[in-house]
Amino acid sequence: MDVVREVEKILWPKPLKLFTAGPVACFPEVLEAMRMQMVSHRSREYQEIHRDTVLRLKAFLEAEKSVVLLIPSSGTGFMEASIRNAVSPRGKVLVTIIGEFGNRYREVVERNGRIPVVLEKPLGKPVLPEELDDALKKNPDVEAVTITHNETSTGVLNPLRELAKVAKERDKLVFVDAVSSMGAADIRVDEWKLDLVFTSSQKAFGIPPGLAMAAVSEEVFERAKKIPERGLYFDLLEIREFLEKQWSTPTTPPIPQIIGLNVILKVIERMGGKGVWLKMYAERAEKIRRGVLELGLQLFAEPGYYSPTITVVYNPPGVKGPVIYEEMRKRGIEIAKGYGRVKDVTFRIGHMGYITDRDIEELFKTLREVLVSLGCKIPGK
Amino acid sequence: MDVVREVEKILWPKPLKLFTAGPVACFPEVLEAMRMQMVSHRSREYQEIHRDTVLRLKAFLEAEKSVVLLIPSSGTGFMEASIRNAVSPRGKVLVTIIGEFGNRYREVVERNGRIPVVLEKPLGKPVLPEELDDALKKNPDVEAVTITHNETSTGVLNPLRELAKVAKERDKLVFVDAVSSMGAADIRVDEWKLDLVFTSSQKAFGIPPGLAMAAVSEEVFERAKKIPERGLYFDLLEIREFLEKQWSTPTTPPIPQIIGLNVILKVIERMGGKGVWLKMYAERAEKIRRGVLELGLQLFAEPGYYSPTITVVYNPPGVKGPVIYEEMRKRGIEIAKGYGRVKDVTFRIGHMGYITDRDIEELFKTLREVLVSLGCKIPGK
Repeated sequence: MDVVREVEKILWPKPLKLFTAGPVACFPEVLEAMRMQMVSHRSREYQEIHRDTVLRLKAFLEAEKSVVLLIPSSGTGFMEASIRNAVSPRGKVLVTIIGEFGNRYREVVERNGRIPVVLEKPLGKPVLPEELDDALKKNPDVEAVTITHNETSTGVLNPLRELAKVAKERDKLVFVDAVSSMGAADIRVDEWKLDLVFTSSQKAFGIPPGLAMAAVSEEVFERAKKIPERGLYFDLLEIREFLEKQWSTPTTPPIPQIIGLNVILKVIERMGGKGVWLKMYAERAEKIRRGVLELGLQLFAEPGYYSPTITVVYNPPGVKGPVIYEEMRKRGIEIAKGYGRVKDVTFRIGHMGYITDRDIEELFKTLREVLVSLGCKIPGK
Repeated sequence: MDVVREVEKILWPKPLKLFTAGPVACFPEVLEAMRMQMVSHRSREYQEIHRDTVLRLKAFLEAEKSVVLLIPSSGTGFMEASIRNAVSPRGKVLVTIIGEFGNRYREVVERNGRIPVVLEKPLGKPVLPEELDDALKKNPDVEAVTITHNETSTGVLNPLRELAKVAKERDKLVFVDAVSSMGAADIRVDEWKLDLVFTSSQKAFGIPPGLAMAAVSEEVFERAKKIPERGLYFDLLEIREFLEKQWSTPTTPPIPQIIGLNVILKVIERMGGKGVWLKMYAERAEKIRRGVLELGLQLFAEPGYYSPTITVVYNPPGVKGPVIYEEMRKRGIEIAKGYGRVKDVTFRIGHMGYITDRDIEELFKTLREVLVSLGCKIPGK
C-alpha cells in the first residue's frame, strides 16, 4: 500500500480542519463505507441499496408525490436537466439571481437555447416574494422560475417556501438549486410544490463529490414528453424508467457515493431524524456567526436570511481575504476564499459536513490569532 | 460503525468473485485510497493530484497532442459531449454499430438533433476497414464517424487503428467509445489520430464508477467554437479552460475516483508500465477463452476479434444463460448475463479489474460443476 501512502502525502501533507464550501469533511462512517468492494449495478444487492437510499431521501425531503433520482453528475447536471427536459426550445425562464450560482443558472438557460428573464438582487440580499410576484406579473409568458435556495457566494438563504408559493400561484414550474442547502435547511417538496429541487453529495450530507440527487414532480415528466432533443444523458424520462424498472440508472451510478448517502441517511435516523439533524445545522451556524461577530467582524448577508451552511464575512479593514485564508491554512485550518464578484472583499467559513464543537473552538482560536497577527483590533482586547 | 456493517451486509451478504461487465472488482490499493478524507477541489493539493493523474493518463494513451479531461459523469457523458460539441446541428454522423453500445451512440446522435447514418454489422462481427471506406464513399457529407472499440454485449474488439485510418483519410472526426477497452487494449491517440476517445472508471482500470475520462483533439475544440447550444455541463471548451487555468473542473469532480485513477496509474508504472499491464490483460483474456473452449462451449465473437475484457459465450444446448448465472452466483461467482438482443442465447464472463489466477481457476472449477449439474456434456469427461 506504498502507493496509497504516497498519494495521501500529496493530498494531506499535514492535517487540515475543513471549513470549506464543498467538498467538505465527510463523516467517518461515510469514509469507512467508501472502501467497500464494488458490485454490479444490475445486481439485486445494489438495487436494494439504491431503493433504500431513494426511499430514505424521499422521506427526508417530504417528497412522497415526487420521484427522487440519483445520477452520476455534479449538481449542475440537474440544472441542465431541468431546462432541457421541461422548458420549450426558445421558451422563457425567470432566473432569479442573488450571486454566482444564479448566474450559472442563467448561463445554463442561454446555452441550451432558452431565454432567461432575469430578476437580480444586489449581492447579500435575498429575493423577496413581492419582487418575484411583480416580475411574474410583468413576464406572464415565462414557463419556469429558478431559485437559488442558498447562495454559496454570499451566504444568503432565500425564503424558498414563500417564493415557491408565489410562483405556483402563477402556475409556473419551480426549479430549485438546493446544492448548498439540502440536508441543512428544511425543504418540503410536496407541501411547497417544488417541481425540481436538486443537490450534490459533497455539501450538507457530508459525502464525497460525484453524485447528484433531485426530487422531480410529475409535471416535469409530463412536460418532458413534449420537449424534443432532451439528449440522452440527462433525459429524465429515461432515468425515471430505469428507476421504476430496476431501482437503478440508465448509465452506471457512482456506487461509493450512493453507499455514502445511504450510510448518512441511516446515521440521521439514529440521531433522531430530520428534525434533530437540521437543528444541529442551525445551532452550528448560529455558533459560527456568533464567533465571527465576537471578533468584531461583519456578516455579508442581510440579517434574517443567514445561510445555515456557509457564513460570508467582510474582510477587516486593510486586510485581504486571501491573506486570512493563507494564514489560517498555515495553522491547520482550511476556510474558503471569497467567490465571484465579492471575492476581494470577503472570506467564507463553510460549516457543512463533519465538524465537531472542538473544531469550531479551534477555528475561532486560530482566527483570533491570525487577525491579531495582521494587526486587527479585536473587541474587548 | 454499526451502520457501515449493516450496509455491507446488504451489499455483500456473502463473498462473491466478480467476473462482471462493469462495475468490476477494484484493486485493493484503490479501495484503500477511496476512504481518504476529502479536500476542496480548489485547493493546491487537489490540483496536484488532478495534474499528475491527467499527465499519467496522457502518457498511457500516447496522447501528447490531445487534451485529457476527467469529468463527473459516466462514459456516456462523453458520447453526448462529442455530438453536442463537434457536430453541427442537423449535421450527419456515420454511426457504426456492432451491438448495444453502437445503438446507444445512434440514440445520442438522434436525441441531440443530429442525423445518424448507420453502418450495422451482424452481432458477433467487427466493422471492417473496407466496409467503413465504402460507407464513407457513399456518404461524403458525414462530419464524424463513431466507433465502439470494444462491444461489451458481443465481446468483439473492432480493429480501431485500421478503422480510424480510413476515417481520417476521408477527413472525418473519429469518436471512439472505448468504455470497455481503454486500459486493456492498446490505444495510441496521436498516432491513430483519434479525435475523442473516452472511457469510465469502472472498467479496465478497476476503479469504482463515477468518473469519465477522455482524450480530445484540438480539432474538436476548434469545431466546438462554432457550434451553438453546447449546453454547460458537457461544454468541452469550458472544461478545458478550467483544466488549463487551475488543473481542475468547472463543476466539482468525483475526487475519490480521481484518487483511485491516480493510484492505479502508479501501480501500473510500478508493474513495469503500459506494456506489462496490457500483456497481463491479453494473457488473462487468453486464459479465459481457453477455459471456455475446454468446457466444450463456443465463443460468440468472430475469431481474430476477441475482446481483451469480456468473453461472450453461447449457452450450451438446452440451457438458459440466466440459469447458469444464478447457479454460479449460488456458488460464489458473479458472471454477467447476456445483454441486448443476444441476452437469451449467451452469457458473459468479464475479465476486468482485480482478478487473480486463483480466481480464474475457481471460475472454471465452478463453471464445470454447474454445467455438469445442468446435464451438459463436458469433453473428455
